[in-house]
Amino acid sequence: MFDRIDHVGIAVEDLDSSIELWRERLGLELSHREVVAEQGVEAALLDVGENHVELLAPLGEDTAVGRFLAKRGPGLHHVAYQVRDIDAALESVRDAGLALIDEQPRTGIRGSRVAFINPSATERVLVEIVER
Amino acid sequence: MFDRIDHVGIAVEDLDSSIELWRERLGLELSHREVVAEQGVEAALLDVGENHVELLAPLGEDTAVGRFLAKRGPGLHHVAYQVRDIDAALESVRDAGLALIDEQPRTGIRGSRVAFINPSATERVLVEIVER
Repeated sequence: MFDRIDHVGIAVEDLDSSIELWRERLGLELSHREVVAEQGVEAALLDVGENHVELLAPLGEDTAVGRFLAKRGPGLHHVAYQVRDIDAALESVRDAGLALIDEQPRTGIRGSRVAFINPSATERVLVEIVER
Repeated sequence: MFDRIDHVGIAVEDLDSSIELWRERLGLELSHREVVAEQGVEAALLDVGENHVELLAPLGEDTAVGRFLAKRGPGLHHVAYQVRDIDAALESVRDAGLALIDEQPRTGIRGSRVAFINPSATERVLVEIVER
């Protein structure tokens, strides 16, 4: 079902200083930066081969990433897996008895179609499914 | 410096039930299982294209993953990046002023050479470097 790890999502306090860390000090290339208002974040994508690191800075305290930072501090937030057909993937996930946060795909970064599985179904790992 | 995401490491309470989740319900193939005594874990690798999910169950409470579970519960533990030359990569990380947990590579799963960066240097993301 999953073709590759699309990205790891990292919650950060300050997007510019995190980009500096991952680009200047760890050598990743910044490929995209976007405000994703629907998810309450400003996000940056950095390339690691065909995979990515996605840095997520909250647009406010009352957002999912804002609440994550307040509770746990910066760090790993989710893992996203790439699929060719997100509708078929969501059908498989449902058939496997796993609860979804998003019953239907919504628009993610760079025009992708994305959906999240409820982390209660995946041992507290927040799993995103992405069709690029 | 990093060629791809090698794996995401997930701390789990029970290795068998986690393997069942990722294999039977999320469709990943189990490719390896090993007790890595030096790291205090029993680990399983599942394939996602050229990337992997690494499930980590602690061998006891007084291990790094055992303490992680006691403090935070199951969930994302670290991200590993693949390099061709780990000695050169560690040199680059040191030159960038980032503190290492492992000044020299040690033996990881499946005979790989691995080293961890100190998470205080990477905004509380535990980063592993892997030469397969």
